[in-house]
Amino acid sequence: MTRSKAMSNDAIVLYGAPEVDANVLYATGFHAPDPFLFLRVRGKSTVVMSDLEIDRARTEAAVDRVVSLTKTLATLRDRGVREPGIADVAALLLREARVRGVTVPSTFPVLIADELRARRVRVEPVREPFFPERTRKTADEARSILDVQRVAERALEAGLALLRRASARRGYLYLDGVVLTSERVRRAIEVSALEHECVAMNTIVAGGDQGCDPHNRGSGPLRPGETIIIDVFPRSTRTFYFGDLTRTVVKGVASDAIRGLYHAVSEAHRTGLESIRAGVDGKDVHTATAAVFERLGYPTGAKAGRMEGFFHGTGHGVGLDLHELPRVGRVGTEIPEGAVVTVEPGLYYPGVGAVRIEDLVFVEKRGVRNLTRIPKILEIG
Amino acid sequence: MTRSKAMSNDAIVLYGAPEVDANVLYATGFHAPDPFLFLRVRGKSTVVMSDLEIDRARTEAAVDRVVSLTKTLATLRDRGVREPGIADVAALLLREARVRGVTVPSTFPVLIADELRARRVRVEPVREPFFPERTRKTADEARSILDVQRVAERALEAGLALLRRASARRGYLYLDGVVLTSERVRRAIEVSALEHECVAMNTIVAGGDQGCDPHNRGSGPLRPGETIIIDVFPRSTRTFYFGDLTRTVVKGVASDAIRGLYHAVSEAHRTGLESIRAGVDGKDVHTATAAVFERLGYPTGAKAGRMEGFFHGTGHGVGLDLHELPRVGRVGTEIPEGAVVTVEPGLYYPGVGAVRIEDLVFVEKRGVRNLTRIPKILEIG
Repeated sequence: MTRSKAMSNDAIVLYGAPEVDANVLYATGFHAPDPFLFLRVRGKSTVVMSDLEIDRARTEAAVDRVVSLTKTLATLRDRGVREPGIADVAALLLREARVRGVTVPSTFPVLIADELRARRVRVEPVREPFFPERTRKTADEARSILDVQRVAERALEAGLALLRRASARRGYLYLDGVVLTSERVRRAIEVSALEHECVAMNTIVAGGDQGCDPHNRGSGPLRPGETIIIDVFPRSTRTFYFGDLTRTVVKGVASDAIRGLYHAVSEAHRTGLESIRAGVDGKDVHTATAAVFERLGYPTGAKAGRMEGFFHGTGHGVGLDLHELPRVGRVGTEIPEGAVVTVEPGLYYPGVGAVRIEDLVFVEKRGVRNLTRIPKILEIG
Repeated sequence: MTRSKAMSNDAIVLYGAPEVDANVLYATGFHAPDPFLFLRVRGKSTVVMSDLEIDRARTEAAVDRVVSLTKTLATLRDRGVREPGIADVAALLLREARVRGVTVPSTFPVLIADELRARRVRVEPVREPFFPERTRKTADEARSILDVQRVAERALEAGLALLRRASARRGYLYLDGVVLTSERVRRAIEVSALEHECVAMNTIVAGGDQGCDPHNRGSGPLRPGETIIIDVFPRSTRTFYFGDLTRTVVKGVASDAIRGLYHAVSEAHRTGLESIRAGVDGKDVHTATAAVFERLGYPTGAKAGRMEGFFHGTGHGVGLDLHELPRVGRVGTEIPEGAVVTVEPGLYYPGVGAVRIEDLVFVEKRGVRNLTRIPKILEIG
């Protein structure tokens, strides 16, 4: 993992658990379930660890100094601080380094910020990207993401294999004598990911109208002839990078209406891919993608109190967070060289079906390198 | 999920993703990957949702009102706010409700807090427990946790089954003709959890000295005669509650030194269980547990620059977070009736072995009800 290129005179403070705080994970390369304090002053990084994690941090954390939380709290008590907390520890270390002001991420805990301010440390929150270099993946990071994307493809294949083996009877799909459900397909996908050192959670296998709610995971029996959206986004348990991949299939024969949706989404997807290169604004990519749906006659908006059409962004950055910068939507941000982003337009019409196609791409000067190679095939025989 | 019993005149604001922010999940009963705004004013709850989630929130979120983020941003722009953000949305809704001050959790994002304050809203962070009732589980919550604990037990059994079937040869364990590794045992455990609608991540299967670092997940070949710590903590993908369970085993015959460790940890574990009842301080439980190790002659401290002995807490609350209040350690909090806590003393001596035994218990007036029933057996034949 690349370290942040610190300006020589900056001071930053982070407080979070790497498992859920990608900035802490990025800054330390250290994975842990509980939050800890990270400081970087004039390019020198420090973590403050509990007895439980301190030995592992000493060998695994990519930082200059590992400080004992227990000892620092004892020092503070010796100096008369009653019930010292994280802010006291941070203030002490900053005072020792003669630092009076720090920047923190926008999500830094307000309580610690208030306590630092009460101890006369200036605290200035900075909007994401807190580490701008997180948006520009190094070769190592791109390789890690590619590895996960391959796992996502294999996992998707494991799910498709069940659909291929299934057969239709009286309006339902059957496999091995029982009705084939979203849950069973999801399980096959998630087990496959696990077998390749990745965790896939909340995998979407949503048939028919369930797919019209883009975050409905899907449940119950699957049916022939309906759209089935499969969206899988595993995370490596080794590198902690994510992959992200969506395909839409129909078991059996797709109706003309569904073919129409699929064609439109394919066109929008291709337009999205072709619109991306280093330096463009994510908003312009989204506008180009959405324009395809307008042109082909697929409207977006609320109908009978429910959103339909294309009502999510075209994509998002992927890295140590599943959803990170750049933004490729109605609100966009500049897409830098080295960004890894999804391209995932979709159309959702209750009563007809739901189609989403998602690839993950690496952004280069003149275009994109697609990290996804699994084919896009609507019908499964 | 039980709603918070609001005082009639309070106003609270949350901002977070339920997937990683248990307060938001608890307050809304709504699971989503991206952060959103939650307000509760005079007992009436509101969430502000993107177009992507709004329809699902309307059917799934246990709140009084679902507001459209898109529409609210448009309203703000109509009123002349340029590039309105979350703080503008929150400030508008609070102004409409004639609220001038709010409480927020300690982890509330400092940037939004600063922006609210700049818009003349008082923001007062409150230490955990932000929702004190999260510590006292309802019958439904206790049932959800018990269900996950059963899954954890089955998953552990799936791992133990591999160890049972393995045989020792030239200092290593073999199964199906290949060396048995931590990774393979972990995979069997995690696949079993998945098959029962739970996700187990970072499951620990740590042999020998690897186990002496309590958060080392373990890797590589397993050996006969060494301690193997197995710590599994799945989360339900349906209810989002956690379970937590640890056993320590030896394949083959345990040395006298290991038997000594196991006996001491068993005694400490029993003492921990017997010390807990509603109203005691977690610190006192920890002191009683640690005293057993002192009495039996197992010292704790740094040796050759590495922690050994018993250098973590006795336990922690478990619920929508894996680690939540009450605390049962050197720093403790009161353990209320209805709390669900782990009891997990351990001893770690590099060169000898590592033993940890962990049950999950429900706290009652006069003692605990153990939610864990899988036996504690050191040797696997």
